[in-house]
Amino acid sequence: MTRIAFLGPPGTFGEEALLTQADLAGGSVELVAMASHADVLAAVVGAEVDLGFVGLENSIEGSVRTVLDTLVFEVDVLIQREVVLPITQNLVAPPGVALGDVRRVVSFPDALEQCREFFGRALAGVELVAANSTAEAVRIVADERPPATAALGTALAAKLYGLDVLAAGIEDHPDNSTRFVLVAGDGVPAPTGHDKTSIVLFQQADRPGNLHLIAAQFAAREINLTKFESRPTKKSLGDYCFIIDFEGHLADEIVADCLRNLRADVGRVKFLGSYPAAGPTAGAIRQDVEQRWHEADAWIAELRRHIQP
Amino acid sequence: MTRIAFLGPPGTFGEEALLTQADLAGGSVELVAMASHADVLAAVVGAEVDLGFVGLENSIEGSVRTVLDTLVFEVDVLIQREVVLPITQNLVAPPGVALGDVRRVVSFPDALEQCREFFGRALAGVELVAANSTAEAVRIVADERPPATAALGTALAAKLYGLDVLAAGIEDHPDNSTRFVLVAGDGVPAPTGHDKTSIVLFQQADRPGNLHLIAAQFAAREINLTKFESRPTKKSLGDYCFIIDFEGHLADEIVADCLRNLRADVGRVKFLGSYPAAGPTAGAIRQDVEQRWHEADAWIAELRRHIQP
Amino acid sequence: MTRIAFLGPPGTFGEEALLTQADLAGGSVELVAMASHADVLAAVVGAEVDLGFVGLENSIEGSVRTVLDTLVFEVDVLIQREVVLPITQNLVAPPGVALGDVRRVVSFPDALEQCREFFGRALAGVELVAANSTAEAVRIVADERPPATAALGTALAAKLYGLDVLAAGIEDHPDNSTRFVLVAGDGVPAPTGHDKTSIVLFQQADRPGNLHLIAAQFAAREINLTKFESRPTKKSLGDYCFIIDFEGHLADEIVADCLRNLRADVGRVKFLGSYPAAGPTAGAIRQDVEQRWHEADAWIAELRRHIQP
Amino acid sequence: MTRIAFLGPPGTFGEEALLTQADLAGGSVELVAMASHADVLAAVVGAEVDLGFVGLENSIEGSVRTVLDTLVFEVDVLIQREVVLPITQNLVAPPGVALGDVRRVVSFPDALEQCREFFGRALAGVELVAANSTAEAVRIVADERPPATAALGTALAAKLYGLDVLAAGIEDHPDNSTRFVLVAGDGVPAPTGHDKTSIVLFQQADRPGNLHLIAAQFAAREINLTKFESRPTKKSLGDYCFIIDFEGHLADEIVADCLRNLRADVGRVKFLGSYPAAGPTAGAIRQDVEQRWHEADAWIAELRRHIQP
Repeated sequence: MTRIAFLGPPGTFGEEALLTQADLAGGSVELVAMASHADVLAAVVGAEVDLGFVGLENSIEGSVRTVLDTLVFEVDVLIQREVVLPITQNLVAPPGVALGDVRRVVSFPDALEQCREFFGRALAGVELVAANSTAEAVRIVADERPPATAALGTALAAKLYGLDVLAAGIEDHPDNSTRFVLVAGDGVPAPTGHDKTSIVLFQQADRPGNLHLIAAQFAAREINLTKFESRPTKKSLGDYCFIIDFEGHLADEIVADCLRNLRADVGRVKFLGSYPAAGPTAGAIRQDVEQRWHEADAWIAELRRHIQP
Repeated sequence: MTRIAFLGPPGTFGEEALLTQADLAGGSVELVAMASHADVLAAVVGAEVDLGFVGLENSIEGSVRTVLDTLVFEVDVLIQREVVLPITQNLVAPPGVALGDVRRVVSFPDALEQCREFFGRALAGVELVAANSTAEAVRIVADERPPATAALGTALAAKLYGLDVLAAGIEDHPDNSTRFVLVAGDGVPAPTGHDKTSIVLFQQADRPGNLHLIAAQFAAREINLTKFESRPTKKSLGDYCFIIDFEGHLADEIVADCLRNLRADVGRVKFLGSYPAAGPTAGAIRQDVEQRWHEADAWIAELRRHIQP
Repeated sequence: MTRIAFLGPPGTFGEEALLTQADLAGGSVELVAMASHADVLAAVVGAEVDLGFVGLENSIEGSVRTVLDTLVFEVDVLIQREVVLPITQNLVAPPGVALGDVRRVVSFPDALEQCREFFGRALAGVELVAANSTAEAVRIVADERPPATAALGTALAAKLYGLDVLAAGIEDHPDNSTRFVLVAGDGVPAPTGHDKTSIVLFQQADRPGNLHLIAAQFAAREINLTKFESRPTKKSLGDYCFIIDFEGHLADEIVADCLRNLRADVGRVKFLGSYPAAGPTAGAIRQDVEQRWHEADAWIAELRRHIQP
Repeated sequence: MTRIAFLGPPGTFGEEALLTQADLAGGSVELVAMASHADVLAAVVGAEVDLGFVGLENSIEGSVRTVLDTLVFEVDVLIQREVVLPITQNLVAPPGVALGDVRRVVSFPDALEQCREFFGRALAGVELVAANSTAEAVRIVADERPPATAALGTALAAKLYGLDVLAAGIEDHPDNSTRFVLVAGDGVPAPTGHDKTSIVLFQQADRPGNLHLIAAQFAAREINLTKFESRPTKKSLGDYCFIIDFEGHLADEIVADCLRNLRADVGRVKFLGSYPAAGPTAGAIRQDVEQRWHEADAWIAELRRHIQP
């Protein structure tokens, strides 16, 4: 039995994302709802669960900033997989409540914010009430049945709590998506040919030119960056780190080589994992690049045989 | 009378940050509370107010991601100033309620999340209830006086609503701070010698080597970067933009030169403003660098006088 | 009457190259033969002549290294034009001398060196005698008629001195060519759309990373380099300069901009000239790059109008 | 018995340089004078000698350009050592000839060129006569005793041929020096901690940005470049190669790593050798840089142990 912690209660976007993964949804998996992303990560580190599932970017539930800071500065876990879920907001209410009846909407504040145009258009003057998550909002509406009240939440939550969907896909910007990652206390998944690697690069100081040198390491190897973000380390003013995602796997020589040089020449590197990338576009290290590295490595080995003792 | 929109209700961290600015707190300034950051920016664009004040990084109220996306992709406003406020959480309650009485705490979910260690230590088993902002939480506790209930909020909100501070500075990580910016529909403040510039750089495609070229532009001019963040543009997969803050002002030749080359050689640049930097450490373009540029410019002009007609 | 100094005596490769330039061969031009390249440059600096013509790369006559060092370190002249001449060696002798009669060959030592395979094949055991230039060798053979002796030299010299060509094109490597430049005391030729620029970049010290920054300046502007060569400055150990040729003209904004930044950010720049390039391949600054610079410059000017007084 | 070929006849600057090397001057070494640098290299390749000694930069005897082109494009030899010799010109004549008697000076043309100021000052109107090398000039004056004639040459040659030195150190620019290299058909000397490495890097095309990428490889590893020179490959227009010298040895991991990446990412690399550097300033790879590489390599090895099968 594999135990996977996620941000509860049941019906969050996180659970919805998790259930898109066929191999994690079977009978041999137990999902464990936690009160916060911090609790999810603590459970992984404490080995109370085998895996944890947390939102890493653009999530509308839980403090994504806290997740990232925790991964970067506090815990040592390794990313096993990423899952990208399109975010769709649904207005849900108990059977019998029609859209025209709704005077109050309960949800997570960010979710409420994402539907402001819809409210102005379809529910003018509606009162917005905060909940700790969209799933909690759905649960409150389902359990307490406050009059003339709907919740914003996932289709999963509506189904779990027996509510009807009054309006689906009502978010103002329909191109939203959230990136989740599955983490474990240890282990790097074997390369699939379709992988990403995530690292944090710490620097002593914010010197002009550092970014130039870091970028050179990737450019020289034709490694595609998919995320690059500076972040103060909070330890002292002027100290920075960079959170970097790029295509390729630790098992690729060109990636190992890049990491080795970043560590030797730039600063401390924290390895967050190499893992199968989500979506059809995330690429592998191009085979010609990797092949050229192997050929060059053989050449160096041959040259070195000529060194005299 | 200068009208400044901010995220209400009164007593938010935003208002607290605004009130640290002596020149914006006088009798000739009218503060206008808005229901969301989006409303603040819309009021600026619509000229309903002269200035808007929004959280840009690490804020715990309102959706900071929404603010950034709106600035980057939707509205044209110019940053006039940045304000960095240390974030301190206070447990506040009506007079007569002691810490030992508290069974429920109301606040914005992120604020509740930031004090989880304190709750575990001092208020074991407490129920956490969401509100749309910390200021709304304080207002609810002040107006409705729910039994055994405290709010997390600012000292300003406690004072405005007549509550007592039961415990101050209870956030788990005391080094939190939030960056706010003051924006206007137009106008770049004159240089102070202590300025920052913010831009967004759009790219056609996420090619290896682009970051190397962008970084080269700053490295070659010894311009200090204070923030560098990639962001998908949402228009199509593979299109990226970079949100970049750096030291110096549009009026500096070395900065103008850098922007000109970024635009000519890399991609579209959206100028978000040059403005006085917060804090003692944010620097000016070093005078020797700027001086060298002027000397070099005079040299080019002299050389060009030798070109034959 | 335009006076042009060149390395004499008449019949050198330099004169041959000069005569390929139709506009410099007319009746209004007086060619003045000098004893050395140093004399040519001194005559230009002293205004004894209007123009000087010297070998700059791969020349087989005179010390090209001396020419380059003089241009780089000693005199201030501006390149007006480059001329690239294929180098062809001819065995020439007085009428009546056949190839089978030749026992001695006189010429400039580098010319003799370039035909060693021919000598081994066709004139086994021949004695090689040095002269101060190929033209002097031809003159000696023509004037002194030493027995069984031929000279290596240009077809032009053979004609000037009334000798026959016994064998043409006898150099071992037929793809040799020499680059000459025409220099003046002042003046930059107007751009032709097909120009090159030459500079020397001086550095304080040979620090790792300097080349990276210099290369960044050209890469960022998509400027094509045609020559890049480091050279000790001789002033002290560890001091270097770079001799750089690239496509484009001082009148191009993108070139002016690059020079300005090299001077402001890297080190002292000596401008050696912008001039029409030889050959069909040397390119202009691409018009799209130059056009983008102008568009970006207009954008900066517009932005700066928003700076408050 | 070790046989070393050099550019003869006896008494050249090359032989003078060779004799500065104590370990190559003993009784177990046989010096073999050759007629040209090309012959020296051919003798090494053909195993007629064990080692060859040729001028590589700034030499005033033989065609240094030919040496470099031969090393780069034609033969496969490995540099074993570099020797840098200050170049000093001496006016030498048979006993009984005084400075005031001299009406003609014989020497290699470049040597004559280097003493023009001296001739103008001390021997006004002197006739300059070419010889195939400075050593040949000394031999001619010694053997043939032409009247009122001196030679320019080395002190070694004067001694070998029994001539007196009329004036020593008469070159116009006293800071001249020449770099020679000792080459062998195979073998890389063991690292001394004070080594240089020479390579040629071939490129498919002269694209803007290539130099930026190449420079990045060295900058990222803090490797000090001591020479960097572009050179057309002659194979076709637009094809370039770079001749690069840098501090460090093939046995250094940081150097091997750099070479591997240059070959994998930029173009074909021809290895010319790792060898003890001349002079006190040529450096070793800094031990801290090399140490960091080893530490980083161990880190990668440890990380990779976590990859699942």
